[in-house]
Amino acid sequence: MAKAPVLTPQADDFPRWYQDLINKAELADNGPVRGTMVIRPYGYGLWERMQQEMDVRIKQAGAQNAYFPLFIPQSFLTREAEHVEGFAPELAVVTHGGGKDLEEPVVVRPTSETIINEYFSKWVQSYRDLPLLINQWANVVRWEMRPRIFLRTTEFLWQEGHTAHATYEDARDYAARIHRDVYADFMAEVLGMDVVLGRKTAKERFAGAINTLTLEGMMGDGKALQLGTSHELGQNFAKAFHTQYLSADGEQEHVWQTSWGSSTRMVGGLIMMHGDDNGLRVPPRLAHVQVVVLAIKGDDEVVAKVREVGEKLTAAGLRVVVDDRTDTPFGRRAVDWELKGVPVRIEIGPRDLEAGTAMLARRIPGGKTPVAIDSLAALLPTVLEEDQAQLLRESRERRESRTVDVATIEEAVEAAATGWARIPWADLGPVGEEELAQQGVSVRCLVTKDGGVPDSDDAPGTLAIVARAY
Amino acid sequence: MAKAPVLTPQADDFPRWYQDLINKAELADNGPVRGTMVIRPYGYGLWERMQQEMDVRIKQAGAQNAYFPLFIPQSFLTREAEHVEGFAPELAVVTHGGGKDLEEPVVVRPTSETIINEYFSKWVQSYRDLPLLINQWANVVRWEMRPRIFLRTTEFLWQEGHTAHATYEDARDYAARIHRDVYADFMAEVLGMDVVLGRKTAKERFAGAINTLTLEGMMGDGKALQLGTSHELGQNFAKAFHTQYLSADGEQEHVWQTSWGSSTRMVGGLIMMHGDDNGLRVPPRLAHVQVVVLAIKGDDEVVAKVREVGEKLTAAGLRVVVDDRTDTPFGRRAVDWELKGVPVRIEIGPRDLEAGTAMLARRIPGGKTPVAIDSLAALLPTVLEEDQAQLLRESRERRESRTVDVATIEEAVEAAATGWARIPWADLGPVGEEELAQQGVSVRCLVTKDGGVPDSDDAPGTLAIVARAY
Repeated sequence: MAKAPVLTPQADDFPRWYQDLINKAELADNGPVRGTMVIRPYGYGLWERMQQEMDVRIKQAGAQNAYFPLFIPQSFLTREAEHVEGFAPELAVVTHGGGKDLEEPVVVRPTSETIINEYFSKWVQSYRDLPLLINQWANVVRWEMRPRIFLRTTEFLWQEGHTAHATYEDARDYAARIHRDVYADFMAEVLGMDVVLGRKTAKERFAGAINTLTLEGMMGDGKALQLGTSHELGQNFAKAFHTQYLSADGEQEHVWQTSWGSSTRMVGGLIMMHGDDNGLRVPPRLAHVQVVVLAIKGDDEVVAKVREVGEKLTAAGLRVVVDDRTDTPFGRRAVDWELKGVPVRIEIGPRDLEAGTAMLARRIPGGKTPVAIDSLAALLPTVLEEDQAQLLRESRERRESRTVDVATIEEAVEAAATGWARIPWADLGPVGEEELAQQGVSVRCLVTKDGGVPDSDDAPGTLAIVARAY
Repeated sequence: MAKAPVLTPQADDFPRWYQDLINKAELADNGPVRGTMVIRPYGYGLWERMQQEMDVRIKQAGAQNAYFPLFIPQSFLTREAEHVEGFAPELAVVTHGGGKDLEEPVVVRPTSETIINEYFSKWVQSYRDLPLLINQWANVVRWEMRPRIFLRTTEFLWQEGHTAHATYEDARDYAARIHRDVYADFMAEVLGMDVVLGRKTAKERFAGAINTLTLEGMMGDGKALQLGTSHELGQNFAKAFHTQYLSADGEQEHVWQTSWGSSTRMVGGLIMMHGDDNGLRVPPRLAHVQVVVLAIKGDDEVVAKVREVGEKLTAAGLRVVVDDRTDTPFGRRAVDWELKGVPVRIEIGPRDLEAGTAMLARRIPGGKTPVAIDSLAALLPTVLEEDQAQLLRESRERRESRTVDVATIEEAVEAAATGWARIPWADLGPVGEEELAQQGVSVRCLVTKDGGVPDSDDAPGTLAIVARAY
């Protein structure tokens, strides 16, 4: 389809392309309070599907959903010293409620470790109460000085898991399980996103954690995006909130804890990992609209046919929208669905009816072919699985081709202009990390030589992945 | 099972029974900030199932989910005069963010008509953009002076629908459709709750609405609880926010709007409508745990059998939990599941294994019978449907038997001590309504003689349902 570009090309200005896409695909708008966002129905549909797929995996990992209050007494935050230092600059504070000034101001949760520990300390009495595995889906607020929609917003939606265990080992293994079986599995299998699993350096750890596991994705412009984290909290919050249990031996012990989160930031990651100059490309297993059946013209037979095809494909288990809004020109609607990244368009016009065919337009590999209408229900599941695999493959190939092994800080900074660099952590260390930071480059994570997650920062052979990041 | 009462009996002190049940069935705790609540996993499971069932019906009614910001500029609230008057006393205000005092304070949303209209006014241009049908699942904050858990909390969870239509008639019909096809259908079919559908008087209308439709349930103590409302907003918000469209005739017109909400208050209604002195009774179609399979003793064969039965019943499409925590006495676990209101318990001990039977304990009708283990998968769906029907029948019988027709305000007040009264609205009117209010009795809704929803307050034959209410 020859046309003037709808979006600023990625190569011209990647951030502007991102913003254009979000506007034109009707994913989100900026909110009236700086840094907040309105998630529009098509964008929210992506998040709903993420929630569904994540929620299944979280429940399979044994955690149960619950809900803790939005408002946290200011004093709770100060009980864990590193935690308050990390979050204090980002807090929103309610000072006035029900027509009166409050005696103690309350903060709007930036994360819920403190308020959840207040309750864990009541609910956990004995070793029989452990492990306690809780997740919540909620909004959180962190005041953002440099907001960017979906990536850094003052309010965002997320899930946050919080668990308590009897031993260090149990907590460590559970944090690793969430990292691998929930986050990594979801990102590879559903989002079709290649991600690197690693361990954060001390500098990049969550405020209050003893270890942070991360998943980092390479975006279309070669920068990195942190897509989820799973923390070992040790006994830091347990000590601050007196979360103790009576062991089988009759001793009072502090619990060992984890927390882990992933957010609407993943929608931003999806856009920047799979999008192209024509818009978004939604992986079929995620897509809330996998197939759109379009009436090219508004005659009665065509409209009846697209509805019939829509019903058949829905009955075959596909997620389908019928577009018979023929008072809007066909070309404009086709461009709109392309922008929105719906994997498959089925286009039907008067001539197709006679031939019993439809035009099958594929967003992910691109291209159009005529196919027999009767074959669609059997054909499309295979097409969608091919498309899903292609996105994962492309994202892996991009990361592999744009990651280079380097030996010096200068080389690392140079590589980070277009992609990622890998450098032995023993050669870099916290001092080198600080030097990189001054040039806007960060250690995204530490990995083992064979791409695994190291057990500690100083395990021999540990490599640092360094990049510019969102 | 002979035992001391676990809960304060309903007849002794209904509010205390309610609070006891919430604590002992582990549904929720009070939050640290007055009026807030922590929804514990078993309580949240009820809300999750409510969300799932409601969400399907909302989408069938054509609405799409989206998400609008928690923070609303204070100035937005003041644009619709009645709206701000209604909500100003309940607002929580953020005055401080990111380490600084804010130039304009922001309010934490008490409801989203204002912020949503700000965006509707951008998104709606032409009659082709209508109807615009949006729903969001969110938390809202209304500062509560007399909080009661699930019923009146400073923060609660809800869905709020917001729609814009080209004509008065379309908006009116859509508000009625949500009232009937989403709320009433869900409450009768899933919650097994008898509710009266009616119209609010001018005094009880939502702040900013031209008409409010309500669903009122009779609780176990004869008081009323408002379980959901659907409002016609007329053009009030459209005029305040300039939400206009270009009609097919080329004229700029204000849209006609609806909004509608239901919340975690329904969990409180569920407890007070179906609960008894032994705890909650969860309607099977709602229950996230429909069946619990209990090991009476911890021997290996019993534990293996309960797991096997659990798997078979899960495979048969039931929502099942296996309770093999045999380090806790069986009696205590049985009481706990009874408190939590799980419809069916399957209890298996060593003697049952030999006979191939299990004890089937039914929470809703009560009683225990031995049944063949192999017959369970075929038997239970019927049992659960009988139980579902019983709850709806009981709640309808209670309302019918405890509603009386009265002719005077004195009689109405007397009837409201134990139930509801029905009185011709023409005899009561706004003056009588005010007199009732001074005695703590309110007009819950107006209905027609045959139990329908009147088109206006002054339709001939309109009856007022009056009661004490939560």
